[in-house]
Amino acid sequence: MTITAAPALTAVLKPEELLESLRARCAVKKYDPAGRIPAATWDALEQALVLAPSSYGLQPWRFFVVDDPALRTRLKDASWGQGQVVDADKLVVFAVRKELGAADVDRYLASIAQARKVPLASLTDFRGMLLKAVSRPPADVAAWAARQAYIALGVFLTAAAALGVDATPMEGIEPAKYDALLGLPEKGYTALFIAAAGRRAPDDAYGEQPKVRFAREDVVVHL
Amino acid sequence: MTITAAPALTAVLKPEELLESLRARCAVKKYDPAGRIPAATWDALEQALVLAPSSYGLQPWRFFVVDDPALRTRLKDASWGQGQVVDADKLVVFAVRKELGAADVDRYLASIAQARKVPLASLTDFRGMLLKAVSRPPADVAAWAARQAYIALGVFLTAAAALGVDATPMEGIEPAKYDALLGLPEKGYTALFIAAAGRRAPDDAYGEQPKVRFAREDVVVHL
Repeated sequence: MTITAAPALTAVLKPEELLESLRARCAVKKYDPAGRIPAATWDALEQALVLAPSSYGLQPWRFFVVDDPALRTRLKDASWGQGQVVDADKLVVFAVRKELGAADVDRYLASIAQARKVPLASLTDFRGMLLKAVSRPPADVAAWAARQAYIALGVFLTAAAALGVDATPMEGIEPAKYDALLGLPEKGYTALFIAAAGRRAPDDAYGEQPKVRFAREDVVVHL
Repeated sequence: MTITAAPALTAVLKPEELLESLRARCAVKKYDPAGRIPAATWDALEQALVLAPSSYGLQPWRFFVVDDPALRTRLKDASWGQGQVVDADKLVVFAVRKELGAADVDRYLASIAQARKVPLASLTDFRGMLLKAVSRPPADVAAWAARQAYIALGVFLTAAAALGVDATPMEGIEPAKYDALLGLPEKGYTALFIAAAGRRAPDDAYGEQPKVRFAREDVVVHL
């Protein structure tokens, strides 16, 4: 996909709007099953996932949006029974490549050559760098790919809040059951965690509780 | 820190503004050394880091903002000579706790009790859950803590773009050298990666190149 970057950034938010948004969001525990995300809003959130940055730009991920209610019910059983899996309007399964190799590198290089209209031969040095990165021990590469998916999660949660959409990051799933239910290994992917999105129920237990964060001076330290 | 959450989310951005912002951002390679981030904007970005979500809310991180130019120069040598380390207005080192244990859990529980005005005794079950989470093999806990820091990175990059601030995520550092230069082990932390923030130089090589992303249908799959 070719996306032409603007030559410079323009602010689309005021600092106080950003903070209002980040303070108001929370990991919603109970969703309103009737709460629907407007189509244009959800479309932007999917695009935000596509646009999320990753190391070298390699995008080792795939985002599975589970629309099928029967599948959602089975996934709930693989999520310690957490209701958000079925009650939220949308459910995204964040997955990464089971293994990264030369094929992933070449797929990426082909997309660069296409988007930037440059010959593949001009990317030889970059190819060498990427091949080195994916030829580390498999466990290291898997951990690295997984970390990239958490960048996408941070983008998604921030974007959702700014668009007025409740969202919940959920690590409490059984990834192997997710993989089996969604047929991910056959697709070359493995599930890491999920995010629910929709509208919090009026009686969500946490929505009106004060947010808990360590004091700023304990978290941000100037040197 | 007590931050009262709003009872529901209000959109502060339109979908097209979000996308404009995410399309315009890029991992800037060359910063304008004279480019300054307005104080109120940087203040909001630091607060965005404080407000970033993490598993269980445990915030296993600390964000070191390196203001000292001499220290920046030494860090550049520990970053394969990448110029962003010294040229960007701000440099944030994302670090996590070297080891997580009961003291971290109790520090967090104390902050919950204070923010929500509940007795510590009411958090006994949650304490047990957290202690179990941090008592897994040390390598697993370290990997889990590291992944949380990438959520904060995703929040930071999205927030920076929305506020019109250029930013660059950088994994290409030598963490052990960062630890030594910043005295992180003595503080109980270890460096993972950095982010530079400021204003891109007019001749930044990548700013005007088309963004490269896989096709949406290859990245977001509905089931």
